[in-house]
Amino acid sequence: MPDNTLPSPVKLPVIEGPTQPAPSPELADLYRGFEQEMLIPLWYEIGDLMPGKPQAKAAPWLWKWSDLLPLAEQAGDIVQVGRGGERRAIALANPTLGGRPYISPTLWCAIQYLGPGEDAPYHRHTQNAFRFVVEGEGVWTLVNGDPIPMRRGDFLPQGTWNWHGHFNPTDQPMAWIDGLDIPFQYATDSTFFEFGPEQFTDEERTTPQQSRSERLWQYGGLTPEKYAAQPIPFSPLFAYRWANTDAALTQQLAMEAEGHDVTVEPGHAAVRYTNPTNAGDVLPTIRTSIHRLRKGAATAPRREVGSSVFQVFDGAGKVSVGDRTWSVTRGDIFVVPSWTTFSISSEASASDSDSGALDLFRFADTPIFEKLDLYRSEIDA
Amino acid sequence: MPDNTLPSPVKLPVIEGPTQPAPSPELADLYRGFEQEMLIPLWYEIGDLMPGKPQAKAAPWLWKWSDLLPLAEQAGDIVQVGRGGERRAIALANPTLGGRPYISPTLWCAIQYLGPGEDAPYHRHTQNAFRFVVEGEGVWTLVNGDPIPMRRGDFLPQGTWNWHGHFNPTDQPMAWIDGLDIPFQYATDSTFFEFGPEQFTDEERTTPQQSRSERLWQYGGLTPEKYAAQPIPFSPLFAYRWANTDAALTQQLAMEAEGHDVTVEPGHAAVRYTNPTNAGDVLPTIRTSIHRLRKGAATAPRREVGSSVFQVFDGAGKVSVGDRTWSVTRGDIFVVPSWTTFSISSEASASDSDSGALDLFRFADTPIFEKLDLYRSEIDA
Amino acid sequence: MPDNTLPSPVKLPVIEGPTQPAPSPELADLYRGFEQEMLIPLWYEIGDLMPGKPQAKAAPWLWKWSDLLPLAEQAGDIVQVGRGGERRAIALANPTLGGRPYISPTLWCAIQYLGPGEDAPYHRHTQNAFRFVVEGEGVWTLVNGDPIPMRRGDFLPQGTWNWHGHFNPTDQPMAWIDGLDIPFQYATDSTFFEFGPEQFTDEERTTPQQSRSERLWQYGGLTPEKYAAQPIPFSPLFAYRWANTDAALTQQLAMEAEGHDVTVEPGHAAVRYTNPTNAGDVLPTIRTSIHRLRKGAATAPRREVGSSVFQVFDGAGKVSVGDRTWSVTRGDIFVVPSWTTFSISSEASASDSDSGALDLFRFADTPIFEKLDLYRSEIDA
Amino acid sequence: MPDNTLPSPVKLPVIEGPTQPAPSPELADLYRGFEQEMLIPLWYEIGDLMPGKPQAKAAPWLWKWSDLLPLAEQAGDIVQVGRGGERRAIALANPTLGGRPYISPTLWCAIQYLGPGEDAPYHRHTQNAFRFVVEGEGVWTLVNGDPIPMRRGDFLPQGTWNWHGHFNPTDQPMAWIDGLDIPFQYATDSTFFEFGPEQFTDEERTTPQQSRSERLWQYGGLTPEKYAAQPIPFSPLFAYRWANTDAALTQQLAMEAEGHDVTVEPGHAAVRYTNPTNAGDVLPTIRTSIHRLRKGAATAPRREVGSSVFQVFDGAGKVSVGDRTWSVTRGDIFVVPSWTTFSISSEASASDSDSGALDLFRFADTPIFEKLDLYRSEIDA
Repeated sequence: MPDNTLPSPVKLPVIEGPTQPAPSPELADLYRGFEQEMLIPLWYEIGDLMPGKPQAKAAPWLWKWSDLLPLAEQAGDIVQVGRGGERRAIALANPTLGGRPYISPTLWCAIQYLGPGEDAPYHRHTQNAFRFVVEGEGVWTLVNGDPIPMRRGDFLPQGTWNWHGHFNPTDQPMAWIDGLDIPFQYATDSTFFEFGPEQFTDEERTTPQQSRSERLWQYGGLTPEKYAAQPIPFSPLFAYRWANTDAALTQQLAMEAEGHDVTVEPGHAAVRYTNPTNAGDVLPTIRTSIHRLRKGAATAPRREVGSSVFQVFDGAGKVSVGDRTWSVTRGDIFVVPSWTTFSISSEASASDSDSGALDLFRFADTPIFEKLDLYRSEIDA
Repeated sequence: MPDNTLPSPVKLPVIEGPTQPAPSPELADLYRGFEQEMLIPLWYEIGDLMPGKPQAKAAPWLWKWSDLLPLAEQAGDIVQVGRGGERRAIALANPTLGGRPYISPTLWCAIQYLGPGEDAPYHRHTQNAFRFVVEGEGVWTLVNGDPIPMRRGDFLPQGTWNWHGHFNPTDQPMAWIDGLDIPFQYATDSTFFEFGPEQFTDEERTTPQQSRSERLWQYGGLTPEKYAAQPIPFSPLFAYRWANTDAALTQQLAMEAEGHDVTVEPGHAAVRYTNPTNAGDVLPTIRTSIHRLRKGAATAPRREVGSSVFQVFDGAGKVSVGDRTWSVTRGDIFVVPSWTTFSISSEASASDSDSGALDLFRFADTPIFEKLDLYRSEIDA
Repeated sequence: MPDNTLPSPVKLPVIEGPTQPAPSPELADLYRGFEQEMLIPLWYEIGDLMPGKPQAKAAPWLWKWSDLLPLAEQAGDIVQVGRGGERRAIALANPTLGGRPYISPTLWCAIQYLGPGEDAPYHRHTQNAFRFVVEGEGVWTLVNGDPIPMRRGDFLPQGTWNWHGHFNPTDQPMAWIDGLDIPFQYATDSTFFEFGPEQFTDEERTTPQQSRSERLWQYGGLTPEKYAAQPIPFSPLFAYRWANTDAALTQQLAMEAEGHDVTVEPGHAAVRYTNPTNAGDVLPTIRTSIHRLRKGAATAPRREVGSSVFQVFDGAGKVSVGDRTWSVTRGDIFVVPSWTTFSISSEASASDSDSGALDLFRFADTPIFEKLDLYRSEIDA
Repeated sequence: MPDNTLPSPVKLPVIEGPTQPAPSPELADLYRGFEQEMLIPLWYEIGDLMPGKPQAKAAPWLWKWSDLLPLAEQAGDIVQVGRGGERRAIALANPTLGGRPYISPTLWCAIQYLGPGEDAPYHRHTQNAFRFVVEGEGVWTLVNGDPIPMRRGDFLPQGTWNWHGHFNPTDQPMAWIDGLDIPFQYATDSTFFEFGPEQFTDEERTTPQQSRSERLWQYGGLTPEKYAAQPIPFSPLFAYRWANTDAALTQQLAMEAEGHDVTVEPGHAAVRYTNPTNAGDVLPTIRTSIHRLRKGAATAPRREVGSSVFQVFDGAGKVSVGDRTWSVTRGDIFVVPSWTTFSISSEASASDSDSGALDLFRFADTPIFEKLDLYRSEIDA
């Protein structure tokens, strides 16, 4: 036995079962030896460790915007935002992940709230992040000194290790959701974090209607020659505006109606946010997309390796995830665990827009599995 | 509140600290609301979740071969191998990972033992796996019907979803180590597993000195034309033989002595096992390599994102990992947690070979971080 | 000598020179043997074949739009367009390429002209092609049944093997330039061509203001989910509109004026047309870009492997290519041969726009050299 | 008309034909305008420029080794090798390529001959090159100071811009073939060339049985860790030895006989030489491979975009290329032009080896077309 100093956490009571060795004093003795040397036999727990298919640790779950927003507002009244706590961000904790602030084993999702005149200070971290705005406006996100306005429908990716903060120069509060790969990086011990300056400079605290990032990168298919030969792993376009997204979805449904095969499935338009420097996902670990189900449309039941989070952007619908079924409306957030069958349909509602369509924002850990050759999906017939 | 049915695991007692809101009845009330809606504020645990640098959950640890092998032999006497338990594999459990059979948060390492005449039955799984043989011979691994002999110094990678089993047609037992990405796939809910036939066929149970895989793929730089345009994510070469590995290491040190800059650092020769179809790592999630430190050589103190496991193949040495220091010899296995500084030096020993060199096999989760743009390393000056 | 049937084209008179063997009857005899067996010794022509640096076969040359357009109009009066001749396209023939219709050894450039009511019939070919419109409008290009309007400033790429034709439903003629890799594919014997139907259908002969390709692909960073995992070697966006291009150039110069390092060099804004499915060039063999030199700006003298063609889109300027110098204005086309130093500056002119800026469209064979690891460039100090 | 100074090489007599405009004085006048402005209309030569399928400019052709070798020996007697002429290399000139030293529009193939004690001096060039040895030994190729022995069956690739020379320290002459992409680089004006020192140093002029390149890179699947993350566009392994190649081919045929699907087609074993740093072709522009047809086997008639050159390494066979048919034996070289159907069969011969097999070395310009998305092939039913 080496000169190790920690007590062994290994506990191996003799257990019975069809795949277990027959209990005997010798077996008990062997297990004592295993415990002492910090060893655990495969036969002891192979069924848990290596199941026939993924046994999702996360539960299907729904958070209602009508519950989240008031709590965020309440936090706005009594919790200051600043250095140390860094953000007034409140994470959605999946109920079967042990009380950890994880919406899935790999993903973090929080509602963030910034009151009039407040700042969320500069920092940077290896975690890949984004913001999505389901309602409101008035906050600017600073990324590397570039102020970026946030408005309903905008998607703001912000890849690993970029300096960022937020400020609200208006007299109205604003809330939005943050998505990050915190649980993944925490589980794999790959996270770095650095504090930036306490205060924004006057030059940073400006409020342009368009960021420099957009001025440079918003023109699809027109790559600045200076950067044309330099793919980077995250998108340098730090805001994807709703007007564009809406138009793209509208066109897909219109073209489908004209007989062209451009939608994912009947009545289901979708665009993926992509990185203009490599045509891949905007973030190396997170796939993001927007989906529109026209009135009466439904997605085919489907399951995939990896977990997804959806937020309803507009309209109302019905969602089925595993054995759960919910009605959802604007702002509601739900999580689809790995290899759990889900489907979504639009439905009329009192608060519905005229179109009857259902718009959803989605983020998922799919790139992790695709890059490591572990991705699978199937339509559930 | 949605129609959810699980009790909330979220517990948020008001805590005090420099980055916490001042305790008050309103705060306690807010936290009750968070608990009810399964929400956890970032300020509550940012220091743990987003540390300045990786706070490795695993501990540096050493297992002595002289402890492992007798326990494996003892298991050989009293535990049968067969369907259900599948393998007589005994996993090394890192003492700070909660009694789980994980050597690091992403990696599994086990000693496997197969007695005379025994079989380990066919199965396949998404987990990427390999075997490395520190001593002995006499077992054949079957991969997709191809019998592959195993001998001291051989490395046998076996990527995701290939059928495999083992049989020992000799009258001697044999032990070796298995490495897999079980913890990673378990944490990310991406694991599939399938049982194969209970018995090997007569055609499978043959004992060629060379596998078909080797006959096709062993010739470096000579790609079978039939497969030349078809990169696959794992190596189709299922055995890398010691004679080649030894020769490659010998040549590197000889060339270094002649004045050529071909080693990793002075006195440190190393080869990486690579996939002949894409020149990348043999397995999509695991990097594997062999290292030789000539007599008296030492590696520079270094740390990296991700975890590594080393097994001493030959010689004796001194190892420092974080604040631990060990003397190691043939068969000993140690783990280097993420962002933990380590260095290794060769040293004379009674059981030493004439050369005084130290040979080590290494496996690591580096490809995960490289592919997701999260890898970092630094020399500790 | 094998049973070959062609007379030998090899002629090897004994020549004198510092690298030639001394003339002798034996040498003459040897050369007769070479001729008979169709052999040519390296020493005979190494200086030509393997020069110290590229000896461009093309000459720097300028074609004035004021010369080209009247000839195209004249052709419009007396040459019909239709099946067989296919296009009323008139190629610019570099004067040192032997009377071949090549503007450089790899590139073809033509002015195409289509009168009121005329059609250019459907065909497809392996040659990669594009159109660029320096003035006028009124023609629709059909690509795979998708009618695409053409207007001043628009760039219309159309990759290998897509069906295409043109029709002019207006009462005005229109001219534009075509660029293709005809000489490259001709030299390497890789060209396929197929005729399509003689007539466009009524459904094809529609005149939308926006093509289906644009409706699907124009939204930068918003990839249709249906196609998101399918990179294709040419851009599926068949029109890049001037309004976007102009805005991108305007923003680059504005940002430069604000102190940001976003231009290629001082006063020189540039965007590269890219393929949204792989972020690379719009065509596998041709790089295309737009450049704007603000009033008084000049490019640094530079040379590159491969040839380029420029067309002035707006403004006036002065161009130096090798030992030639020209004044250029709207529509003028010039070619820069391989490894020939060139520079361009804007200059005031009577016909100048208020801005004094010079806008140029460029196409080049750079992707060929980059993909084959043969590209080099240097600034000529 | 711009201030251009060259006389126009464009000649456009009015011609008649189904796709030509009707002759008229106006047309003649238009053509005079075209000539003056160096313009050539597409309708004038579209049939030649854009044929329905590649109209190979090269002819199928065969050179007999029994003709080549005596001429090379004769050159050895009367032509010195040295600076300026650089190599005693005699190129095979395709009879329909205008007396140029090109075996195809993209490829160069020469027999090189070096007498006892002779040197071929150091130089480097952008052209990618290789040597293949059909018989003999005794010459060392120096690549960047690394002496590499050459022996029958060895393949020695040497990518762009590496210094190289040859010396023969023995008392026997030696001949081999050189392959390069000279015509391709010449046609595209991308060639650079530099002379090295006149003399080899004593350190260079050593005669190891194995090169340093091989000592480092010959071990398949064992990448030197120092270089593991650095793909380079050409193979760093500068010699691929016959013993390995022969064993690989032997194994493929043996496995085929055992019922495994590992050959290209029945009785046709083949290996492609690949670059261990990226698993692609050894040279960025040239694909190289070795083929073995067992006694009585034949390849299916096939055609491909791009040109190929074959040299018989051993055995005898019958070859059909387009409308030509030849019997071939050791050393014979033949060229297959683009999109020309060819097939090869082994046949007994007096000089045959016992096996009756036919071994062929092949090189082709395929990578050019694959990288530019222009490759096609088809089996000719």
